[in-house]
Amino acid sequence: MRVGEFELIDKIRRRANIGPEIRLGIGDDCSSIVVPPNCELLTSTDLLLEGVHFCLDWTDLRSLGIKSVAVNISDLAAMGARPVSLHLAVGLPANFSDEQVEQYLNGIFAGLDRYKVSLTGGDTCRSGGPLVISVTVQGVCHKDRLIKRDGAVAGDDLWVSGTLGDSGLALRLLQSNKTLPAFLADRHFRPEARAELGEQLGNLGLATAMLDLSDGLSGDLGHLLKVSAVGASVNMDKLPLSNEFLIELRKDQSLLDLAICGGEDYELLFTAHPDKRPCVEQLSEEMNLPLTLIGTITGDQKLQFYKEGNLNYKPENSAFDHFRSTGDSSLE
Amino acid sequence: MRVGEFELIDKIRRRANIGPEIRLGIGDDCSSIVVPPNCELLTSTDLLLEGVHFCLDWTDLRSLGIKSVAVNISDLAAMGARPVSLHLAVGLPANFSDEQVEQYLNGIFAGLDRYKVSLTGGDTCRSGGPLVISVTVQGVCHKDRLIKRDGAVAGDDLWVSGTLGDSGLALRLLQSNKTLPAFLADRHFRPEARAELGEQLGNLGLATAMLDLSDGLSGDLGHLLKVSAVGASVNMDKLPLSNEFLIELRKDQSLLDLAICGGEDYELLFTAHPDKRPCVEQLSEEMNLPLTLIGTITGDQKLQFYKEGNLNYKPENSAFDHFRSTGDSSLE
Repeated sequence: MRVGEFELIDKIRRRANIGPEIRLGIGDDCSSIVVPPNCELLTSTDLLLEGVHFCLDWTDLRSLGIKSVAVNISDLAAMGARPVSLHLAVGLPANFSDEQVEQYLNGIFAGLDRYKVSLTGGDTCRSGGPLVISVTVQGVCHKDRLIKRDGAVAGDDLWVSGTLGDSGLALRLLQSNKTLPAFLADRHFRPEARAELGEQLGNLGLATAMLDLSDGLSGDLGHLLKVSAVGASVNMDKLPLSNEFLIELRKDQSLLDLAICGGEDYELLFTAHPDKRPCVEQLSEEMNLPLTLIGTITGDQKLQFYKEGNLNYKPENSAFDHFRSTGDSSLE
Repeated sequence: MRVGEFELIDKIRRRANIGPEIRLGIGDDCSSIVVPPNCELLTSTDLLLEGVHFCLDWTDLRSLGIKSVAVNISDLAAMGARPVSLHLAVGLPANFSDEQVEQYLNGIFAGLDRYKVSLTGGDTCRSGGPLVISVTVQGVCHKDRLIKRDGAVAGDDLWVSGTLGDSGLALRLLQSNKTLPAFLADRHFRPEARAELGEQLGNLGLATAMLDLSDGLSGDLGHLLKVSAVGASVNMDKLPLSNEFLIELRKDQSLLDLAICGGEDYELLFTAHPDKRPCVEQLSEEMNLPLTLIGTITGDQKLQFYKEGNLNYKPENSAFDHFRSTGDSSLE
């Protein structure tokens, strides 16, 4: 027999941890957070729709739960905030079994544990159609340490964390019915938000501007440049690529564009004054996470990619737009 | 030609007002709120799915926008909080025209204006299936004035705002293909959140416990009683009913159950010490809004309805559960 909604909520409530900032979690009309002194409260919402953002033939439900948390925490990381609370709203397909619900929740709770976030509320209902997931995360950040998108200035270094294009490559391989190497499957189905990096960059005051890469380097960097009213010159030869990406790239050179146009990297892209280069390198070492200098901010409001033998590289794809193709875009 | 997603976001951003607590609205990875001193930040999320929570054959899109805002603000009102910010995530069906998007947004902005709330972020995407709406609202409340569900004590008066059962009656008439009187259509399609009342009750310290009626008096009162570990005795003859409801009730006495089991009233149900009766009555007069004493909180942890000639009235329906029928339930 299927568990009823109130039983499901009770089940979720019993598993939900409550952090020190949470005055009121699941069980009332609203949750309530006590924001620490001199801090602001940051919020981001994402919608994940079956058939648009994920395909249940490809992902298992536990991974989907982990990803539901990570892609939202990534937005908080992108501002230097510390994640505190998560609201989960799900519309479950009528034919979903208790076991399927349990698998999805196991992924959600694994994500919550990973980032030390409290589940503080949400909404559950039956969906007449596909699985619908809406996640809202909240975090806190000292009011002087918020890293916005609009602070990049000409002469700044352009840095990126981790490696690029792995998730886009995974999707390409899935679409061609190929088996994914474990690393690429992790990158696509169970991405990790750079939560500690974002918080450290905020605490150390290293970055002048930052965002997380969800739509691809080319498009997302474009947003940062636009609001900062600057340009950038990106050295394609410096793009950090994983071994798994390089193996496929050797077979097909055109895959390079996935490193700048493929979505869902969830890496942090940030700018910093060149004086901070030793600090960024030290942070990279301490965190055991590659932070790679891929270019320079320029004053001419143009975005230029170059590589050896091609001083004006043009990628084949551009940042996708949900209303014309697929992908995701945020109002925040 | 359809507007692309980035154009749509620009359009929304240009219309979004920014209140004094909003440090950062639409346009970065997260929104940011500065919570006033001694206040807490309250949050509630609701999911509205086409075919589950609304039917596009019945509602126009502007009304749906108004309702999307009101049903969420109602959760803030239920805690005595002042609404501040709203995040909107929508998955638009592929065949939605620009005009349809515009109509829906007109309703959203009408709701935002009504409650003086800033649109601070969200997410837009194409939905492969039905229209999907997720709204998250945030409000602020002085830390000593939060009205929770668990504060009712034996001997308290039980009060309700407005009239009951109008929305449930409207749904019943729609299901029978009957034309709705204007008042019932307003109550069902364009409900009003009792935002000012909730805030006043919080400021004046009148209520010991409160919630908003979304699933029907019987079920929602049951939640309040459970967490307060008390019971209640409700006088059915005192239930506030609109003229439109009374007209239909005269034709069919069984409709009375809609006043205790019909959902989507979005009225506030609260308990208060009997000493506060003159203050509640004065507030009702000042706000020109009926506040009706419908019963008493008891110490026996039972919920009892009575009316003239029937000391133990049993309604035919009980609070609905999404996984077994339809309706909505919240994790907050």
